[in-house]
Amino acid sequence: MPEQSPLDLPEGDPFGPHNLPYGVFSLPGDTHRRVGVRLGSHVLDAGAAAHALGSPYASLLATETLNPLLAAGPQTWSDVRRALTAWVTVPSHQDVVRPLFHSLADVTLHLPFEVADYVDFYASEHHATNLGRLFRPDSEPLLPNWKHLPVGYHGRAGTVVVSGTEVVRPSGQRKAPSATEPSFGASAKLDIEAEVGFVVGAPSPLGSTVPLSSFRDHVFGLCLLNDWSARDIQPWEYVPLGPFVAKSFATSVSAWITPLEALDHARVAPPARDVPVLPYLDDSGEDEPGGYDLRLTVTLNGEVISEPPFAGMYWTGAQMLSHMTVGGASLRTGDLYGSGTISGTETHQRGSLIELTWNGTEPLELPGGKRTFLEDGDEITMTAWAPGPDGSRVGLGEVTGRIAATRTAN
Amino acid sequence: MPEQSPLDLPEGDPFGPHNLPYGVFSLPGDTHRRVGVRLGSHVLDAGAAAHALGSPYASLLATETLNPLLAAGPQTWSDVRRALTAWVTVPSHQDVVRPLFHSLADVTLHLPFEVADYVDFYASEHHATNLGRLFRPDSEPLLPNWKHLPVGYHGRAGTVVVSGTEVVRPSGQRKAPSATEPSFGASAKLDIEAEVGFVVGAPSPLGSTVPLSSFRDHVFGLCLLNDWSARDIQPWEYVPLGPFVAKSFATSVSAWITPLEALDHARVAPPARDVPVLPYLDDSGEDEPGGYDLRLTVTLNGEVISEPPFAGMYWTGAQMLSHMTVGGASLRTGDLYGSGTISGTETHQRGSLIELTWNGTEPLELPGGKRTFLEDGDEITMTAWAPGPDGSRVGLGEVTGRIAATRTAN
Repeated sequence: MPEQSPLDLPEGDPFGPHNLPYGVFSLPGDTHRRVGVRLGSHVLDAGAAAHALGSPYASLLATETLNPLLAAGPQTWSDVRRALTAWVTVPSHQDVVRPLFHSLADVTLHLPFEVADYVDFYASEHHATNLGRLFRPDSEPLLPNWKHLPVGYHGRAGTVVVSGTEVVRPSGQRKAPSATEPSFGASAKLDIEAEVGFVVGAPSPLGSTVPLSSFRDHVFGLCLLNDWSARDIQPWEYVPLGPFVAKSFATSVSAWITPLEALDHARVAPPARDVPVLPYLDDSGEDEPGGYDLRLTVTLNGEVISEPPFAGMYWTGAQMLSHMTVGGASLRTGDLYGSGTISGTETHQRGSLIELTWNGTEPLELPGGKRTFLEDGDEITMTAWAPGPDGSRVGLGEVTGRIAATRTAN
Repeated sequence: MPEQSPLDLPEGDPFGPHNLPYGVFSLPGDTHRRVGVRLGSHVLDAGAAAHALGSPYASLLATETLNPLLAAGPQTWSDVRRALTAWVTVPSHQDVVRPLFHSLADVTLHLPFEVADYVDFYASEHHATNLGRLFRPDSEPLLPNWKHLPVGYHGRAGTVVVSGTEVVRPSGQRKAPSATEPSFGASAKLDIEAEVGFVVGAPSPLGSTVPLSSFRDHVFGLCLLNDWSARDIQPWEYVPLGPFVAKSFATSVSAWITPLEALDHARVAPPARDVPVLPYLDDSGEDEPGGYDLRLTVTLNGEVISEPPFAGMYWTGAQMLSHMTVGGASLRTGDLYGSGTISGTETHQRGSLIELTWNGTEPLELPGGKRTFLEDGDEITMTAWAPGPDGSRVGLGEVTGRIAATRTAN
């Protein structure tokens, strides 16, 4: 049977021409990196296509990272997307672009942009409530500030890695509540955090702020993100300045960045806010709803363990961006911010093992045996889709990672 | 009177040929950036000198940032320093290099390297104790983890700015303990933090750790650092994930990076540690002492307000580096980590206004009037020196900044 053309997709493919996420790939035996656009199970060499078609966007697409495209701003993002849509749908272009597709099975995917700063938020009320119950059982689960501002902190940009990168189990200091002294060793509570990442394209100057209404002028698109966490290292180290070693050893992102324009049909109103917020966070008067209806699935060694719903997040990406810049912090091309763990109201919608197993006290029953936290060799994969036009689905690229044994236990 | 030759320095100049810190500068009317080496009140165009002398280091020095030199590693750092020392001291080179000096008064200094990740520690026992007393008056001032690990957190690399950059007063959410709701406005408790910054040159791979003994294989040199802080924004936002808006609007660093080799005479034993530490932090068996005897001076509008002693820091730069990587986090060229506020045992050795004025309750009496926290137009300057060879002093480049009115109060 002859191979199907990359331009002839099965009906309903979530990576059809209505999606067109961006990534960076290389070919076997060639270290040169290329900007790619995914269509089905193929990737178009976007720079080569731009050159072949004489496109004015060749300088943005024939590069080794998405950064030049990210920096170009929303009008260009829209224009490039329109051009790409034409290249893969208009019959007169197809003879030119068909040879410039490669099967995803044949390419290596790379971190698609140079991460500038990485910030992680904590925007799910259900996740924050669950963690409050687990870590502070004698207090109100939500801290007093939680509904007044999207709590966030800076993470380590240098350890953001692309989907598929092996995750080495971290070692560090832990102290059990009953112990008098801390001890050293490999984390015994290695966990996941299922998140959505926001990729900043257009920068903003130091000393200025980004209002809610400017979200789409700065944010280029979304990815999936797994913020690997060592739950036994975190409680000992995190007072008073926040998580450090427990969350800086690896953060995995999908190899594909889905542009916001591909998700226009997925926009939904966020949940009703039951506490009034200050004007810079008040989105009640915005023209467009700030939420995104993304439906995640998390698998552990192929078994579905959670289906977190992003639509229920209390704080939106626009609110996180406004809060991040309210003090005048500048934005740079390549800034990445995570939503924080996505957890829904139901048990099977929790986006971390500490919630799913209630800090290990209620193990998951899986075909391979019981599981509380991650074991060496475990593989976690997160996927997601969003409603697209005409009943279609828009797929987000998967983020996957396998746990390797610690190298630093002694 | 003819201008003195840049090569003919006054006796005892702290920026003599025993120092030779690195920076990046540009000339009037020319946007091109050049690597410079400071000698007295002049800067040598190091790339031009390397070319003129046929040096093999021209490719490292004729660049627009220090990053290529930083990445080259400790053997090259030493070799380049030896070459530079010869260029400015050996008579046969002097006719060549003399025309390649520029007066500091005539050049613009730039951020000397591209900051990768920025981490801030909290390594002064006296500072941590003072802040514990102020923020948690009913508890032990030092938290239980403080003497077991160097507490640190990630900051915003994109808002690290070079000395001389105006600092715009941030706005944000504050909530007084007596208030029922937060309010929005310009910070009324804008503060300084007098710190030393460590600049990482040689990278390390993901999944590995950097032992104490490898500190000088990775850290290129030191700078002065002022971690501007909004003390009224911080207490409301910082639980449970640490400071965010309160410390991400600006961090100023000196324009000059002093190589560790210039500070060999300043190495001192850190204070006795009264709590045993885990092996990866135990420096009792190290060949060389891990502390640095740097003596800082902080001025506000030209008046000395503090003289913090770096020699008394509880945790050393090597311990901070080992802890930062103990979970397997990689290092990148350009990573920057701050020591945290340097405070000594005495009142006039405290490195922040919140300590110097005891959270505003004991104003400083200055010629211009009383001062609790910073007012618009205030200028803060930090300088430092360290003991050099033969009774000399090694100067660190100053870090200065003036406060501008907020632009975001509404």
